Amino acid sequence: MARIEYVSPLAPERFPELPVVAGARFASVAAGVKYTGRADVMLAVLDPGTTVAGVFTRSATRSANVLDCQKKIACHGDEGAAIIVNSGNSNAFTGRAGEQSVAAICEEVARVTGLPAERVFTSSTGVIGERLPHDRITAKVSELHDGLSEQALRGAADAIMTTDTFAKGASAKLRIDGKDVNIAGIAKGSGMIAPDMATMLVYIFTDAKVSRPDLQAMLSDLTGPTFNSITVDSDTSTSDTLLLCATGKSDAEVSVDDAAFRDALQRVMLDLAHQVVRDGEGATKFVEVQVTGAANDSDARTHAMAIANSPLVKTAVAGEDPNWGRVVMAVGKSGAAADRDALSISFGDVLVAKDGWVSPDYVEADAAAHMKGEEIVIKVDIGLGGGQSTVWTCDLTHGYISINADYRS
Amino acid sequence: MARIEYVSPLAPERFPELPVVAGARFASVAAGVKYTGRADVMLAVLDPGTTVAGVFTRSATRSANVLDCQKKIACHGDEGAAIIVNSGNSNAFTGRAGEQSVAAICEEVARVTGLPAERVFTSSTGVIGERLPHDRITAKVSELHDGLSEQALRGAADAIMTTDTFAKGASAKLRIDGKDVNIAGIAKGSGMIAPDMATMLVYIFTDAKVSRPDLQAMLSDLTGPTFNSITVDSDTSTSDTLLLCATGKSDAEVSVDDAAFRDALQRVMLDLAHQVVRDGEGATKFVEVQVTGAANDSDARTHAMAIANSPLVKTAVAGEDPNWGRVVMAVGKSGAAADRDALSISFGDVLVAKDGWVSPDYVEADAAAHMKGEEIVIKVDIGLGGGQSTVWTCDLTHGYISINADYRS
Repeated sequence: MARIEYVSPLAPERFPELPVVAGARFASVAAGVKYTGRADVMLAVLDPGTTVAGVFTRSATRSANVLDCQKKIACHGDEGAAIIVNSGNSNAFTGRAGEQSVAAICEEVARVTGLPAERVFTSSTGVIGERLPHDRITAKVSELHDGLSEQALRGAADAIMTTDTFAKGASAKLRIDGKDVNIAGIAKGSGMIAPDMATMLVYIFTDAKVSRPDLQAMLSDLTGPTFNSITVDSDTSTSDTLLLCATGKSDAEVSVDDAAFRDALQRVMLDLAHQVVRDGEGATKFVEVQVTGAANDSDARTHAMAIANSPLVKTAVAGEDPNWGRVVMAVGKSGAAADRDALSISFGDVLVAKDGWVSPDYVEADAAAHMKGEEIVIKVDIGLGGGQSTVWTCDLTHGYISINADYRS
Repeated sequence: MARIEYVSPLAPERFPELPVVAGARFASVAAGVKYTGRADVMLAVLDPGTTVAGVFTRSATRSANVLDCQKKIACHGDEGAAIIVNSGNSNAFTGRAGEQSVAAICEEVARVTGLPAERVFTSSTGVIGERLPHDRITAKVSELHDGLSEQALRGAADAIMTTDTFAKGASAKLRIDGKDVNIAGIAKGSGMIAPDMATMLVYIFTDAKVSRPDLQAMLSDLTGPTFNSITVDSDTSTSDTLLLCATGKSDAEVSVDDAAFRDALQRVMLDLAHQVVRDGEGATKFVEVQVTGAANDSDARTHAMAIANSPLVKTAVAGEDPNWGRVVMAVGKSGAAADRDALSISFGDVLVAKDGWVSPDYVEADAAAHMKGEEIVIKVDIGLGGGQSTVWTCDLTHGYISINADYRS
C-alpha cells in the first residue's frame, strides 16, 4: 500500500513536546505486519498500581481486539498493564481467527512482561478481512520490551499511523496539592484507504493517582464533548478505542470531581479530537458547529450532528459558499424540535438569517469572507430553549472522493 | 442560473407514453419566475368528484406551501381540485411572506377555475430564501386555464424540473370489474444547484373511483417501500410533496385492499422513485441494497439505509470496488441488531463474505466484474431473523462534489 506523502493543510505546525509520565514506558518497532520500512507496532508498559479506563466503538460488528479490551477493562488489577498496538491490519471481520490472534499476542506480551494476560490490551488498525499475521508481532515483543523508555511516546504515535498525514499528540501539566501532574496522549485517525476503514485509536497517560471507577467515570463523561463530538463522514469504525491509564507516580490523588484535572484532561482529549478532524480525508476547512437555544442539550446535539454530517452543508463549506439554506434544511431534517420562524444562523460573526428569513442587515460579501478562511464557525440558534451543543467536522471535497473512490483495492 | 445540458447516464431511453386520465387536465407556461425561455409553471385541474391524498416532508422547517397543502388535504370536498406548481423559487424560509404568496396564488386559481381556495394545492421548487415573485404566476393563471388539456401531462413534467437532467413520468393500465383504469404520474428531483435544495415533487393521477380515506391509506402504505426507500445523499428537502388524485371517471370502484390497483400504483410510484435516484447528482451507478435475515423489518430498513447512506460504501461503488468491509462497517454502525459471525454479503450473485469472514470460495475478479456494471446489487443477510428491506441509492462521485461545491452561489 502506497503511503501518502501529502500532509493535511490543517495539520499543526509540529508535533508537540510531550512531558514524561512516570510509570509509563514505550517502545516501537518495524514488524512488517503490512508496511515495510517503518515502525508498525508499539508497546506501552505501565507500572504496578496503574488504573486503566476505556471507551470503545458501539459498532455491532466491532473487532476481536475491542471485544477483548471491553472484557478486561471491567476488571481491576494492580499488577500494572500493557498496551500493544499494530498498524497495517485491523484484525476486523476475521472470524474466530481474529480472537486467536488476540490471544496469541496477549500471551506473548504476558510472558515477556510478567503481567497476567488479563492486563494486556490490544488494538489493531489497517486492512480488514485479512488474517492478522500475529507471529510477526509476537516475534518482536522481546525486542520491544528491551527498548522500553519513558521518552518514547512520540515513536509510538508514529507507529500507530495508517493513512494519517501527521502524527497526533497533546499534553497538559498542572499542579494538584503542590504536586506536578502530567497528562500526555497520542491518537491516530481518520484517514483511510480502501479497503481499510477509518479507525480512531487514542492512548492517554497520566501520573495522577486515580481509582479505576473514578478514572472510568471521568473518561466516559469527557468522551461526549470531545471524541464523540467530532465527525468526518458519519461512518463509524469497528475498532475505535480510547484507553486512559493513570500510573499514580505523582502521588497527586485525583477524584472524579477534581475540576482542575478534569479540565486538563478534557483539553488534551479535545486537542487530540480536533487533530483527528484536521486530518479528515480531503479536508481543507476545520468547521465548528455551535447550536444554542434548542429545547434541550440532546436536541442541540441532534441538530449539530445533522448539520455536521450533511453532505450538502459540507460541500457548501468546501465551495466557500455561505449557504444558509442548507443549514435550514439540516436543522429541519434532524428530527429534533425546531421552528422556522425562531431560527437564527450566523457564519462566523455574520448574522445571516433570523426569524425565519434572511437578515435585513445581511451582506453576502461579509459571510463569504468568513467562508474563505480555514477555520469556519457555523452558529445556529434554534430559539426554543436553553439546550446547546458544539461539534466539529471538516468539509467534503474532491479529495475525499479521490481517496475513497478513485481506484480499486 | 445555468441549465445543465448534461443528461444522467442512468436516464431511461425516452420519456414514456402516458395514458390519458379522464377528468384530469393540464397546462404549462413560461412565467419567468426565475428561468427564462422555458415553461416553469404547471396547472392541473381535476373534475368534480376527484379525491386527493398526499404525503409530505417531515422536515421541521417545511415550506409555506407544504404547510398549506397539509392543512387542506385533511378536508373532503367534491367540487374538484387544482394543483399549481412553479419551478425556480422554492418559497422556503421566506417568513410570513411565503404564506402570503401561497394565499395569493390560491385565490387567483380559485377565481379563474371557480373552485374554492381550499381545493387549490401549491408547490414551489428552486432557490430558497428569496421572496417568491407570485405576481408573475398569478398573471398567467388565466392563460394556463385556457390551455388545459388531458394530453398535456408531459409538458407539466417539463415545467416542474429544476436541475433535473431528464423529465420523469410513469404509468400503468389495468382492468377492474371490466373497466379500464389508468394511472399516470410525473416527478421531479433530485438534482440541485447551490443555493437550491433538492426537492422531490410527485403528482399521480388515476381515473379510478377511490374514497378519500382509502386513497390516503393506500398512498401512505405505498410511500414506505417506494419514495421513502430511496436516498441520494441523506439530506431531506423542506418541500417534498406527493399528491395522488383519483378522478373516478372510469367508474371502476377501488377500495383500500384492491390488490391489482395497489400493485399497479406501487409500480408507478417505484418507477418514478427509481427515476429520481437515476437523476441523483453525479450518479453513475444505480444501487439496490437488499437486506434479509434481520431481527425484524424495521431493523432491516435501518441496516439498508445505513449502507445506502454511507459515504464510504457509495464511494466504493463509484470506484467499482467490491469493498465488503465498508458494508460490514455500515451494518455495525446502524444501531440495529447484528452479529458479526452471522453476516453474509453478496455483490450481485457473488457471495463475498459469510459467517463473519471472507467466503472461502470468493474470487475477487467475479465481484469486481459485477461492480463494473451500471446496476449494482448489494445483498446482506443479517442471519438473525426474517426481517427484510430493499432500498435504492446511487454512488457518490466527483460529480456530486462538482455540482455542490465547485462554485459559490
